[in-house]
Amino acid sequence: MLVSHFVSKRMRAVDLIRKKRDSGEHTREEIAYLVAGYTKGEIPDYQMAAWLMAVWIRGLTHAEITTLTEMMLYSGEIVDHFELPMKKVDKHSTGGVGDKTSLILAPIVAAGGLAVPMISGRGLGHTGGTLDKLEAIPGFNTALTLRDFRKVLKECRMGLIGQTAEIAPADKKIYALRDATSTVENIGLICASIMSKKLAEGIDALVLDVKTGSGAFMAKEEDAIRLAELMVDTARRMGKKCVALLTDMEQPLGRMAGHSNEVVESVEVLKGKGPPDLRELSVELSAWMFYLGERTESVAEGRRLAEEMITSRKALESFRQCIRLQGGDTRVIDDYSVMPAARFETEIASSRSGYLVATRCRDFGVALAVLEGGRNRKEDRIDPAVGMEFHKRIGDRVRLGEKLVTIRYNSEAKFAEVRKLVENSFVFGDEQPLEPPLIRQVIGG
Amino acid sequence: MLVSHFVSKRMRAVDLIRKKRDSGEHTREEIAYLVAGYTKGEIPDYQMAAWLMAVWIRGLTHAEITTLTEMMLYSGEIVDHFELPMKKVDKHSTGGVGDKTSLILAPIVAAGGLAVPMISGRGLGHTGGTLDKLEAIPGFNTALTLRDFRKVLKECRMGLIGQTAEIAPADKKIYALRDATSTVENIGLICASIMSKKLAEGIDALVLDVKTGSGAFMAKEEDAIRLAELMVDTARRMGKKCVALLTDMEQPLGRMAGHSNEVVESVEVLKGKGPPDLRELSVELSAWMFYLGERTESVAEGRRLAEEMITSRKALESFRQCIRLQGGDTRVIDDYSVMPAARFETEIASSRSGYLVATRCRDFGVALAVLEGGRNRKEDRIDPAVGMEFHKRIGDRVRLGEKLVTIRYNSEAKFAEVRKLVENSFVFGDEQPLEPPLIRQVIGG
Repeated sequence: MLVSHFVSKRMRAVDLIRKKRDSGEHTREEIAYLVAGYTKGEIPDYQMAAWLMAVWIRGLTHAEITTLTEMMLYSGEIVDHFELPMKKVDKHSTGGVGDKTSLILAPIVAAGGLAVPMISGRGLGHTGGTLDKLEAIPGFNTALTLRDFRKVLKECRMGLIGQTAEIAPADKKIYALRDATSTVENIGLICASIMSKKLAEGIDALVLDVKTGSGAFMAKEEDAIRLAELMVDTARRMGKKCVALLTDMEQPLGRMAGHSNEVVESVEVLKGKGPPDLRELSVELSAWMFYLGERTESVAEGRRLAEEMITSRKALESFRQCIRLQGGDTRVIDDYSVMPAARFETEIASSRSGYLVATRCRDFGVALAVLEGGRNRKEDRIDPAVGMEFHKRIGDRVRLGEKLVTIRYNSEAKFAEVRKLVENSFVFGDEQPLEPPLIRQVIGG
Repeated sequence: MLVSHFVSKRMRAVDLIRKKRDSGEHTREEIAYLVAGYTKGEIPDYQMAAWLMAVWIRGLTHAEITTLTEMMLYSGEIVDHFELPMKKVDKHSTGGVGDKTSLILAPIVAAGGLAVPMISGRGLGHTGGTLDKLEAIPGFNTALTLRDFRKVLKECRMGLIGQTAEIAPADKKIYALRDATSTVENIGLICASIMSKKLAEGIDALVLDVKTGSGAFMAKEEDAIRLAELMVDTARRMGKKCVALLTDMEQPLGRMAGHSNEVVESVEVLKGKGPPDLRELSVELSAWMFYLGERTESVAEGRRLAEEMITSRKALESFRQCIRLQGGDTRVIDDYSVMPAARFETEIASSRSGYLVATRCRDFGVALAVLEGGRNRKEDRIDPAVGMEFHKRIGDRVRLGEKLVTIRYNSEAKFAEVRKLVENSFVFGDEQPLEPPLIRQVIGG
């Protein structure tokens, strides 16, 4: 190594790996070299993998993360929406179990007058993905071209598609490698991955929903806070308005998990019904989108506008229009039987009485994935019909034999495999716990 | 990850990477899975690279290192030499600048009655390799088949070849990857790499020469000691006698560096001449080989036997015979002009007076590699004619203008490139330093 370093000043991946391995801080040029070289295929997978592991363990500085985000963003195209006169806003969640707010807030915010050009991802591991949920609606096409996406946005101010090949190709390639090399859960890499895609959307403002708790990607609150601060800071350095809500994932959001189930619950909220926690979070996130998108003077006013969009059914109509424009079966709004349904259903009853004091929320997601309502690997297919309906929340008093959760599934063998896991994911105690606050903190507000 | 881990107990590389990333200790089965999977090509380079970086940073336990060595050893064939009635012994050095003892001790020990079936490596970076040195002798063939190697051994009790495809193929593949991913300098990986090859040689005993100081791979003495202890322990667990000598590499060994140069200096020692440090170390290592190979009752007796093999010229004749059997030009023993010579020669004079208190020994090796007397990359060709002859040792008084080193080279441009580096590698002071002891410690003796 030393030799060629002496001979020529030309940059080499092997030297940059060594630098990070030894806890060094990369220059802008070095990060640009790594991202461009890897995207172009000049740096092989194995060198990038070694660098990613060094990064995972040694960490990235604030400046490195910002630069990495920028280089990944500029590895592809940045979409613009000059044809849309209103402000463009979006929300991103770090994911959890039952987190379906995108399906609710996008229609609310579009109905309220802003544009929501949402480029989403798929679920992996224990977490679900917005695209997968939408695709549970028969016919719904999330693979629109950018041209068709623009048309949908122009007509109904909202649109929901997957990452295209033009957007942040560096992220696509790096993410696949991280997934195969156990280098996913690092806040610097997560920040760069999320923000490089979100900043390519051509938005004016971004609201982040950073989950924390047993069902979140970042189980520890301190990690979630650091990630939130990093993402807010990165967005602002790139000239975007941004706040992050630190929200609870100690238990599933709402009552439903699983793709079909979650679409139904989202429509229920848009009809003014649905569970209070899901409704509250959807309204709160919408309110921040209205405020950052300069549609309202305050978050409180944003909250009122969001509620109004639900009460007036305007949000519901926005969602119906979007489903139609993206090829989906709009009957779903009024007739849930249009959605795929599972063949079997079993209720799990409590084997003891007491207070529900906690859940191993992540394991619900794991169990769902085993039932094929989630992905173990990127290439796995999802069964949209399977799902869970939770009947108890943390703080509830539960009697022996009372039903805790209803599981819907298509394979009895797989159900047998996860039954114990689901049962063991409810934690009981003798004293009533405090209900965990849904929104723990607003970062950058 | 969690999902599939739950679904099936089948081992997966991604989970093992995660385990090491999180400082876990691998089971025997896990290491066997990684080594076999990678050797067979079932585990891709990028996963192995991530694992290697995790290992580099998190380390390996003693048990993991022994298992890794064993699995790498059993990835290939283990040579036997049942046809040779005497004990088989070998020496391995961790490498440095001017370290040519193999060329001296192999003939000494063979002449003394033991067999030395030496499977050696090539130089990389600032260190030289035994095979490269031998190949400076016109015609010398280090790529014998195992069959021909046995024939040479049978006739002259010594033979020097390169790693064959049958021996520790896992090491070959892993080493190439480590080289490209900055994961070379880790004592666990080094131990497994060295010992998996050496234990495949079919030897009864092994003497290790672990270098420490500014020209060594392990510059820090504590690292060198840990590596030495690890290797000795690993060899013994595999049923081989083994000791390690911790020796000085704060300055080049002997007066000569460069391939042609070093062959000449080795022959000089075998003629009873040559520099005292090189002679002393060669005799000491030979003595330990005699003792561990049960040829002598003590190391002291081994030392006397080694000296006798030099004085009687029996070792010189063994070397001559080996050169002949391996296709080399035996005239080299009596006529050094047979060796390749460089076109240019320049003496570097001291720009100050004072005591030579230290050298940046590694940089001499780096400079030599730039002159093409060493390799930057594995695929680089070596020019055997280039070299350096050192005129001063640490502790010597040097007057202004006195010559420090003679550089022999074939490219004036490359010489211009390294001149400053070489000049700056001599460190002067006003007080005479203590001469560094050549053999610092015997480990496992």
